[in-house]
Amino acid sequence: MPIYLRPMPAHAEKHAVVLLSGGIDSAVTLAIAQQWGFVCHALTIDYRQRHHAELAAAAAVARQLRCASHKVLALDLRAIGGSALTGETPVPKDRPEAQLAGHIPVTYVPARNLVFLSLAAGFAETLDAADLFVGINAVDYSGYPDCRPEFITSLTGTLNLATRQGTGAGPGSPAGRPWTIHTPLVALNKAQIIARGYELGVNLALTHSCYDPAPGGAACRHCDSCLIRARGFAQAGVADPTRYA
Amino acid sequence: MPIYLRPMPAHAEKHAVVLLSGGIDSAVTLAIAQQWGFVCHALTIDYRQRHHAELAAAAAVARQLRCASHKVLALDLRAIGGSALTGETPVPKDRPEAQLAGHIPVTYVPARNLVFLSLAAGFAETLDAADLFVGINAVDYSGYPDCRPEFITSLTGTLNLATRQGTGAGPGSPAGRPWTIHTPLVALNKAQIIARGYELGVNLALTHSCYDPAPGGAACRHCDSCLIRARGFAQAGVADPTRYA
Repeated sequence: MPIYLRPMPAHAEKHAVVLLSGGIDSAVTLAIAQQWGFVCHALTIDYRQRHHAELAAAAAVARQLRCASHKVLALDLRAIGGSALTGETPVPKDRPEAQLAGHIPVTYVPARNLVFLSLAAGFAETLDAADLFVGINAVDYSGYPDCRPEFITSLTGTLNLATRQGTGAGPGSPAGRPWTIHTPLVALNKAQIIARGYELGVNLALTHSCYDPAPGGAACRHCDSCLIRARGFAQAGVADPTRYA
Repeated sequence: MPIYLRPMPAHAEKHAVVLLSGGIDSAVTLAIAQQWGFVCHALTIDYRQRHHAELAAAAAVARQLRCASHKVLALDLRAIGGSALTGETPVPKDRPEAQLAGHIPVTYVPARNLVFLSLAAGFAETLDAADLFVGINAVDYSGYPDCRPEFITSLTGTLNLATRQGTGAGPGSPAGRPWTIHTPLVALNKAQIIARGYELGVNLALTHSCYDPAPGGAACRHCDSCLIRARGFAQAGVADPTRYA
């Protein structure tokens, strides 16, 4: 029986779009959105990431958590390049703690969260939904500029100007209903996120984090993402369910 | 010999990404960016629009104007729906003048310009470019919220927070170099844009505007886009090179 740490806001019958990558953070974000009473529509972007094992993980998480719908949108970011996650640049391994924070890594995908949240907003408009959920947080920041709260605040204002819903000029949309981008994990570290996931009944064994998995999807144990994940399980004091190569 | 109406700013050797749809506006925007001295990289989004004839038009325009590069990025917006341009909803025909402005039409694609400019920024980051060009203007606005200047201003601020370049924290990027989203057509009507295109030597016969073309690409003459285009040529006093069905 999960223990709910926060009161559940009244959002009955409100629909939300949740960006679901297949990693721990987005899975826990989805569970929180559901706990808060949102009818959740998961959106996964197949951007031809080298760790495409996360796409299968996203589908498994969406099933386990019984999303109202799950869309996979194809966007071939290999065409623009610029990241170790979509290109041939090697994924760095076993970087020391000091390098995991404060620098933008080669795994940065140019403007990724901006692009993904923009797509989520477009999808939400078709559902008459004004709430988006994204699992950004301080630990995953690790130097990614588009994981900062000030980016989210700015984008919310931009969405209100960019969309039919924000301007309220369209048929079927309440006038000027503003967007909300929910970032329920933003102040949590990985151990806290993992603990929250367990409380909410998320099967974290279904999630995938590794940037450079073996062909069968087993985690490499040495990339930034594996290091942060393993440390999170250790600090949370729970067994790491990750399948390592 | 074209007559240049504006002085050419000094942008020698600066690279820019130009969103190139294959329509008149983006073609003229590209020509203006080149006149201003930018080394231009065209980006076309194949969003599975029903008027995919514009993809071939974009390629032809990019060749004619000798872009430094031309990328076509695949993004299947049919998956999220919500627009007559990507779905089965009929494209409206022969709408009266009063309806062409001031309402958001069914051809609105949710958050399209936000998504496309976000992708352009991602591409620009890989080129170390900080300038984007997009051919939005008051006539094409026709009720599209994401064609308004206040949207562009807001997005510029968001880009500065979202990207490696804007924050200046990445290797090889000057600290804090801000983004500029150029909208050189924003104050021009369609006739003025067409006149500008002729001055700059753009072969407008290569462009495609129709939302609902015949299988061979010939224009329908009756959709909003055809109506605005035909009126533009008439008002500009130049022969309409459009191939109609």
